[in-house]
Amino acid sequence: MSEQLGIDDTHDPARTSWVEGSEPGGAFPIQNLPFCTFLLEGRPRMGVGIGAAVLDLQALNRTGLLGSGVGDALGGQPGDLRRLMALPAGTRRELRRRLSGVLSMGADARSTVQACLHEPSSLTFALPAQPGNFTDFFSSIHHARNAGELRRPGNPLLPNFHHLPVAYQGRASTVRVSDTDVIRPSGQVLPEGGTEPAFAPTAMLDFECELAVWLGGPTPLGQPVPLSDAWAHVFGIGLLNDWSARDIQLWESQPLGPLLSKSFLTSASPWVVTACALAPFRVPAAPRHRDAPRLLAYLDAPEDRAAGGLSVDLRVALRTPAMRARGLPAQTIATPRFKDHYWTIAQMLAHLTSNGCPLMPGDVLGTGTVSGPGRGELGCLLEINRLGRESLHLPSGETRTWLEDGDEVVIAGACSAAGYVPIGLGDVRGRVVPPHHQPHPWRDWTS
Amino acid sequence: MSEQLGIDDTHDPARTSWVEGSEPGGAFPIQNLPFCTFLLEGRPRMGVGIGAAVLDLQALNRTGLLGSGVGDALGGQPGDLRRLMALPAGTRRELRRRLSGVLSMGADARSTVQACLHEPSSLTFALPAQPGNFTDFFSSIHHARNAGELRRPGNPLLPNFHHLPVAYQGRASTVRVSDTDVIRPSGQVLPEGGTEPAFAPTAMLDFECELAVWLGGPTPLGQPVPLSDAWAHVFGIGLLNDWSARDIQLWESQPLGPLLSKSFLTSASPWVVTACALAPFRVPAAPRHRDAPRLLAYLDAPEDRAAGGLSVDLRVALRTPAMRARGLPAQTIATPRFKDHYWTIAQMLAHLTSNGCPLMPGDVLGTGTVSGPGRGELGCLLEINRLGRESLHLPSGETRTWLEDGDEVVIAGACSAAGYVPIGLGDVRGRVVPPHHQPHPWRDWTS
Repeated sequence: MSEQLGIDDTHDPARTSWVEGSEPGGAFPIQNLPFCTFLLEGRPRMGVGIGAAVLDLQALNRTGLLGSGVGDALGGQPGDLRRLMALPAGTRRELRRRLSGVLSMGADARSTVQACLHEPSSLTFALPAQPGNFTDFFSSIHHARNAGELRRPGNPLLPNFHHLPVAYQGRASTVRVSDTDVIRPSGQVLPEGGTEPAFAPTAMLDFECELAVWLGGPTPLGQPVPLSDAWAHVFGIGLLNDWSARDIQLWESQPLGPLLSKSFLTSASPWVVTACALAPFRVPAAPRHRDAPRLLAYLDAPEDRAAGGLSVDLRVALRTPAMRARGLPAQTIATPRFKDHYWTIAQMLAHLTSNGCPLMPGDVLGTGTVSGPGRGELGCLLEINRLGRESLHLPSGETRTWLEDGDEVVIAGACSAAGYVPIGLGDVRGRVVPPHHQPHPWRDWTS
Repeated sequence: MSEQLGIDDTHDPARTSWVEGSEPGGAFPIQNLPFCTFLLEGRPRMGVGIGAAVLDLQALNRTGLLGSGVGDALGGQPGDLRRLMALPAGTRRELRRRLSGVLSMGADARSTVQACLHEPSSLTFALPAQPGNFTDFFSSIHHARNAGELRRPGNPLLPNFHHLPVAYQGRASTVRVSDTDVIRPSGQVLPEGGTEPAFAPTAMLDFECELAVWLGGPTPLGQPVPLSDAWAHVFGIGLLNDWSARDIQLWESQPLGPLLSKSFLTSASPWVVTACALAPFRVPAAPRHRDAPRLLAYLDAPEDRAAGGLSVDLRVALRTPAMRARGLPAQTIATPRFKDHYWTIAQMLAHLTSNGCPLMPGDVLGTGTVSGPGRGELGCLLEINRLGRESLHLPSGETRTWLEDGDEVVIAGACSAAGYVPIGLGDVRGRVVPPHHQPHPWRDWTS
């Protein structure tokens, strides 16, 4: 199985790097090698995370150390990760082997490579790629049950839940890189007990803890991706916070689902951990529900049951302005685990393309809120506060029902497995700020 | 009002062009000047429709006849219309004036311009722009009432309908140019009376007759576009067919709305008629429903009530394989009028951005199915056949409930107003073909 998943000597726990901060135990040992896009003189460039440094992929390519095959495929022009995402899976694996080689302890040309390293603190990170399409799933049974119970007590799951991974299309233009301010959105909300909506800043601002699945491609229109091929179309995984305005969502969603309650911002982590790097953390898919009907063939494959799950441990932390003022760190409020997710990433991808829908490099799938069975494993405030009925008690002595201005949410992720060096996904963060009331900067544009 | 809407001497009915086929009465007189993207040696280029010809905008720009201001803004490199969509509205208006000038009867340099004209039959059209985002509305009260009545007899409109233009996000990667084959999609469908879904080709394939609103931009994250500014962000209008698989839609849509029932193909016309060209066809917004509540302020403005409507006459025609075999033309099956649309384009745009959602040049809004009050004005088969209960009787002696393989749907549009030369929007067409069962062409890509 491990060979089938692509585990090779780049995953060897004995391998170490000469780069500072890359010792096992950190987020970015040589077994990880996540990709990012950073800005240099305002232009996007591809980077690789190693220890405490970022390797400039285009600069490294100019040294010739990546070899001509991989080097030609990467090309010489700067750009975001879409170019990398468009490469065949075999070329991407070869790039990983080359990078692992030049960064390994004892490799030649160390000073040449060293000259391609940047201090992350000196860099501005961009979105890994500008997604052409963003599809967000609703595929955690714990989240679906907790959220559904609030609307339909005793009957939380809708009839289609066990048959397909439900999803809606999100707005790609609102996917932004971590650390983008969360401007509290306004919208139509129905006052408590009222029948006429008001237009007001949301009073029910929430986060949603998700994974971002960055896709390779393109695939042609009309050609489904079979379940067994799905992982070859996964470039890698990052973290996603699908900020949500629950009051706007409750009013707008009939009959076509959420839109403005989500399309004010979705934050993505700058780092994408590749499908190759994640191979050691593939686990059996979460067991189907005992009453669940049999899966249709296109969503059922032995290899998906055996290794369709992925063990990513998530942590959601909250830092209020009062904590910041008192020098307190962010407080962990949830620790969901993606291994508990009901539908697998391959099932999401096979379902999404089952009608012939094409994929493009840089497309993003959100897994939907990741929640676990435990009280401390709830991936959004809606579940924690039971739609506003309860409050979260913070160690600072404060309480929170929904997010308040100045609150910062940090979602972090990491993978570990016996016999392998653990790796980190970094984090995605955002701080809530009050609505803008600026003059419109595009006034000139329309004149 | 006419000056406020941007009516100027480019709309003068006395103005004519020397280009063949541009006489008033055709779709593309000099008062129209719609834009398109066509392929030359495989690369996209911007074109302008005039009479029976397509003017190569980049070629014309190289002659210097557009002047340095507009010329510099257009730039020298070929590309799709996104570059034009990103220009300030004032520059776009100036471009229209220049184009109208060089194409007018009696203009100088006629032979220079003539050398920039192509025969449309020699060209391959591309999508006007690759949209980054596609948002589809549900904003015709006739469509909403007809569709709602089938699900909730006696209570067709949901509580939010009169308060906001409902919309969902579509998948931008599946928006393709007219004449792309409609590959019948497969998906999960619930058999009649059953509780377990099957995976099968859709048996309820439908069209939806819509307008495509192509947007300019960008606007910044967090900055709503006020209703009064909305038209400055409209680059132009085309035609859209939002193909729909109703059986897939019925099963998948709870609780997050349609996705796969739409994301197999949305067809857009190659021509975009600019907001400038449409100025004479702006009409008062359709009257609000007599029981409708008062609009919230961000959706209500006197100028929108006075001229927020747009008079576009639509025609949906169907050609079956039997008609084709017998040499019969496509038969008109519906003639909806956009002037009857309940929500205005400006209201859709103001609502979409009311939460701070940014717009990008090339974004598309679909108006949603355009249906009128009459029996012959229904913009989709679902309304015509009342969810499969009735059939359409065609002049060929055939009947249709849903679309069958080989059927071609053609949606055309035109605008007319007293005192102005009528203009056409061209058409959007597509023919249904059976599901593909080809070997996967990306097998190599994943290896």
